[in-house]
Amino acid sequence: MKPGIGTLYGVGMGPGDPGLVTVKAARILGATRIVAHFRKRGSPGHAWTIARSHLPAGVRELALEYPVTTEIGFAETGYIDAISCFYAAASQSIRQLLEEGRDVALLSEGDPFFYGSFLHMYERLRGSVPIVVVPGVTGMSGCWTAAAAPIALGDDVLTILPGTLDRDTLIGKLRSTDAAAIMKVGFNLPKIREALHAAGRLGEAIYVERGTMAGERIAPLEEIGEAAPYFSIVLVPGCKGRRIL
Amino acid sequence: MKPGIGTLYGVGMGPGDPGLVTVKAARILGATRIVAHFRKRGSPGHAWTIARSHLPAGVRELALEYPVTTEIGFAETGYIDAISCFYAAASQSIRQLLEEGRDVALLSEGDPFFYGSFLHMYERLRGSVPIVVVPGVTGMSGCWTAAAAPIALGDDVLTILPGTLDRDTLIGKLRSTDAAAIMKVGFNLPKIREALHAAGRLGEAIYVERGTMAGERIAPLEEIGEAAPYFSIVLVPGCKGRRIL
Repeated sequence: MKPGIGTLYGVGMGPGDPGLVTVKAARILGATRIVAHFRKRGSPGHAWTIARSHLPAGVRELALEYPVTTEIGFAETGYIDAISCFYAAASQSIRQLLEEGRDVALLSEGDPFFYGSFLHMYERLRGSVPIVVVPGVTGMSGCWTAAAAPIALGDDVLTILPGTLDRDTLIGKLRSTDAAAIMKVGFNLPKIREALHAAGRLGEAIYVERGTMAGERIAPLEEIGEAAPYFSIVLVPGCKGRRIL
Repeated sequence: MKPGIGTLYGVGMGPGDPGLVTVKAARILGATRIVAHFRKRGSPGHAWTIARSHLPAGVRELALEYPVTTEIGFAETGYIDAISCFYAAASQSIRQLLEEGRDVALLSEGDPFFYGSFLHMYERLRGSVPIVVVPGVTGMSGCWTAAAAPIALGDDVLTILPGTLDRDTLIGKLRSTDAAAIMKVGFNLPKIREALHAAGRLGEAIYVERGTMAGERIAPLEEIGEAAPYFSIVLVPGCKGRRIL
């Protein structure tokens, strides 16, 4: 690595409540001059909103705006081309700042190494620039805490399922696990509901929208309509009563 | 609930580094007068060690000492009887303090609703006393960050497996998942290694001992001997290169 190069901090921002940022993350944010973050067009950005109260005055914001919605299927070529060009350009913007000797804090919703856009930057930049990653509370931890729904205990198996999976894969996984957290719900909700029903798990499923944030909404999935925003998750808690000792 | 009753705070302590406690948890610890925590006999306690720098002077410590090792199989009757009596007595000690009008912070390694002893207190006390749970960074997040091993991306399925499961269950789960985190390693290590080998995943497996703590040790599982302490985890990262966009 070049001498004098800046450090990239990949900072986990937790599930949404600014108080659920770690002490280490808050310390890094408080000392930072340049903050990069991903956001949808027309939105201030979720990670940015969480970080705001921890940032010093006059911080420089590098907003990286997705060219397309992240809810298009991963397999669609248009999506892959657009998002791939976007990530390449974003990593170049960050690399340039680092090569000028500046440190950059790149915000990551939840935990940086648990799904999410940060990984596309990390894989492009690792090895050539110094990177420090600060783990965070995952969105799912925030959601099961908000729902007062302990997720796993004892010898429970917990399966994390992206809602983008096909219906049959979801059914198979839901049938064979004690507990599940289904991420990336959004427009996959009807399929997720069908899969839970087919697996005989619909009655156990809890829907959590905007967990730990303003506008939080928690309900049995059976009571929820067909539309769900991106910041929603479906939980199937384990922790069968018989395991409480 | 009775008027004037104290509040139980179930506080997630994160993976080990005291900087990985959340801002909210640090605030609660800084204002607390009574701190309860579980520990093995002859040890200061892992959660206590993490909390220490965040606690005010003169805090009252309620150390709840396990009567037996937690590494005995869950199915053994001696274990269940001993631990069940212990949890009942521990929850009574906490309930008594709450009924005297005192608040109690009960420390939980990692995230309170993700495995762990806190849940045995929670299930006994919920509904009859006020409880506030603060989610934390899980031990596994700390470990995959320490290992510089992003765990899941895109449509990866991640399966959380207690190492206490039998060999054939482990093999089946490891064969059918993109990524895995195997907890509760300890003396289950030889069985876990066999299962990974049989599932054709041994070469991908990373061993992490005391992740984010002093004495941290990270190595390919193939290079590790037969003994592992309780604070160890085995990771099988997903994030196949083809998914980096």
